[in-house]
Amino acid sequence: MLEERILKDGIVKDGHILKVGSFLNQQIDPCLMEEMAKEWKRLFADAGINKILTIEASGIAMAIMAAREFNCPCLFAKKHKSTNTPDDCYVSVVHSYTHGNDNPIVVAREFLNPGDKVLIIDDFLATGAALIGLIDLCKQAGAEVAGCGIAIEKSFQEGGRIIRDMGIKVESLARIKAMNGQNDIEFE
Amino acid sequence: MLEERILKDGIVKDGHILKVGSFLNQQIDPCLMEEMAKEWKRLFADAGINKILTIEASGIAMAIMAAREFNCPCLFAKKHKSTNTPDDCYVSVVHSYTHGNDNPIVVAREFLNPGDKVLIIDDFLATGAALIGLIDLCKQAGAEVAGCGIAIEKSFQEGGRIIRDMGIKVESLARIKAMNGQNDIEFE
Repeated sequence: MLEERILKDGIVKDGHILKVGSFLNQQIDPCLMEEMAKEWKRLFADAGINKILTIEASGIAMAIMAAREFNCPCLFAKKHKSTNTPDDCYVSVVHSYTHGNDNPIVVAREFLNPGDKVLIIDDFLATGAALIGLIDLCKQAGAEVAGCGIAIEKSFQEGGRIIRDMGIKVESLARIKAMNGQNDIEFE
Repeated sequence: MLEERILKDGIVKDGHILKVGSFLNQQIDPCLMEEMAKEWKRLFADAGINKILTIEASGIAMAIMAAREFNCPCLFAKKHKSTNTPDDCYVSVVHSYTHGNDNPIVVAREFLNPGDKVLIIDDFLATGAALIGLIDLCKQAGAEVAGCGIAIEKSFQEGGRIIRDMGIKVESLARIKAMNGQNDIEFE
């Protein structure tokens, strides 16, 4: 369903940028979010998940739908403006390849705890930088990462391999092997 | 339900700041979001709404649940970093009383159109600055604002009166008349 929608409404720019603003991360289709959430629930049904973690802003819509399926709270890490972060937060750093800088992300300590089994949700997996930051926040809290649920993985980039090599289960609903331009997207 | 939750888990700081991070805008309770969305659906059932508009990041979770109830897309305005905004966006400016600065917000022109009947959703209504910016984006697009669905209105501040004086229907699920400190919150 997601793959069909990418083929129908996705726009490829400059050969490697996929724009999905019309249904996934600017104008959001709630039915698609719900179907994606049901699929993650199926894929991680036996993982004992009690918390969903994502990062603002475009992961929130799919994460709250996942939280609804798992009947557990949804937590979102915030991008922090200054390097001066409050003591009551866990902090990690995400490198942005798009903007060429490092950005701190934070989550309040009180909401992420030892014993939590966390499903990390995000819209894209490419270099893996955001996921690595979210996994690091869980480690700091002593929480267990039960897996990662991704909407779109660009499997021609190295992020998916890096996370799977860490022994973490990654389930991407659409895996793009190659994008050769508009109307020429190959899935795995 | 929301009022009970505010009394149970809300934290009042410095007499006028209400922290609801544990259920509304950092760690989010999906059941509460769904109940809120159902109530907005009831309140705006006959308004012909075909689009939900909110602003990143903390409005997104409740807005996507509302979009699910209304069976329509959810659109979110982005906070823009620079004053140099792209031509394909509508731009408005939101004054932040907390940080004492003006912040541009943008939405892509292609997603907001004449004939749209928009329900604006947000977590808080206090000064009304964010809502006024979102209403301005709709006006620029020639879209009609069918109403505003708010989680928590601080009715001791002027925002609610300003928006209602514009002839716009505002439905706030919890209206706080006064906050005199922890465990002393008065609802209307």
